[in-house]
Amino acid sequence: MFTCLFFVFKGTIMKFLEDAILKYGKVYPGEILNVSSFLNNLIDINILDEMANSFYEHFKDEGINKILTVEASGIAIATLLASKFRANILFAKKKKTLNISDELYSASCFSFTHKTQNTIVVPKEYLKESDNVLIVDDFLATGEALNALLSLCESAKANVKGVGICIEKGFNGAGDKLRKSGINLLSLAVIDKMDDDTIIFRKN
Amino acid sequence: MFTCLFFVFKGTIMKFLEDAILKYGKVYPGEILNVSSFLNNLIDINILDEMANSFYEHFKDEGINKILTVEASGIAIATLLASKFRANILFAKKKKTLNISDELYSASCFSFTHKTQNTIVVPKEYLKESDNVLIVDDFLATGEALNALLSLCESAKANVKGVGICIEKGFNGAGDKLRKSGINLLSLAVIDKMDDDTIIFRKN
Repeated sequence: MFTCLFFVFKGTIMKFLEDAILKYGKVYPGEILNVSSFLNNLIDINILDEMANSFYEHFKDEGINKILTVEASGIAIATLLASKFRANILFAKKKKTLNISDELYSASCFSFTHKTQNTIVVPKEYLKESDNVLIVDDFLATGEALNALLSLCESAKANVKGVGICIEKGFNGAGDKLRKSGINLLSLAVIDKMDDDTIIFRKN
Repeated sequence: MFTCLFFVFKGTIMKFLEDAILKYGKVYPGEILNVSSFLNNLIDINILDEMANSFYEHFKDEGINKILTVEASGIAIATLLASKFRANILFAKKKKTLNISDELYSASCFSFTHKTQNTIVVPKEYLKESDNVLIVDDFLATGEALNALLSLCESAKANVKGVGICIEKGFNGAGDKLRKSGINLLSLAVIDKMDDDTIIFRKN
């Protein structure tokens, strides 16, 4: 475990988030960035609010009526964002539970955190062709979870108006691939390089 | 699967929530109330906001600085409430993942939804003796999850200033037991009886 430090380029998208990552984030072996002290276990309400404001400013003209995320760590940012858009929140669940309808859209994705293959599901009745969807999540790394969420929307023929990501691991390449495909992707902090004692953020 | 209906007493704590339960809730065998269409899968932002306002009004003088819940379905109400209190959010995770500190408080609870025995954990560094905690969750039934959250707070010697529950299954008795123990528990809807075609809410 090493506390990560230094070498931040100027002119970044969201300086406050980069500052928090540098101050509180911890880098573990295997390119794992632990931000559990302010983003996905203990959540700093001021940072969360700043992030929601940034996403709202970027996507406010897209007619968003539904915020889609995957349980569990995406729910907090999805909720605060939903309150700004006055949109409803839909979260994909990681497996079928006893009290979910059998009428489900499903997609497969691998969790690098838990080292497991998951199926994520949403009831078909909650995701419609008429929906203008903003997908949000705390992390974008290999794109497994995000591609699964996009697949759910494609199955429903819902309109994906944008994707908001708190922290993108740019070195994995999934974000750039999605941008090239024409998706309106906003990542509030993009990490281009990360090792034991250095995090380098992408310049705007 | 049966749509639940009728027989609502007047003078209830939160009429809007009871109305939503009657309109959209579904009762399944095994005393399962499915409110996934507005509370814990697809979340109606207006209902969520009303609930958060109700909790805030009740607990606003308690000096709350931390909202504690358990992943995943408690996170949405915890987040909106946290934004009203300007408090941070802490959610207990259901098992140890690779990127959580080894320094954990833990407590055991049985999930009636998933029929599994879970351990919930929070890192010790995120829950302190100086914290004034409001515990929130979407459901209170047998009290397994809530008692585990209270146990985490007891381990940390944190001050539990109150408990906010969206829907309490009053017929399970766990809520009344907690009230008798002196806990400041606010449940926005208390169901005293529930079967295939009837839901009876507790009068104020």
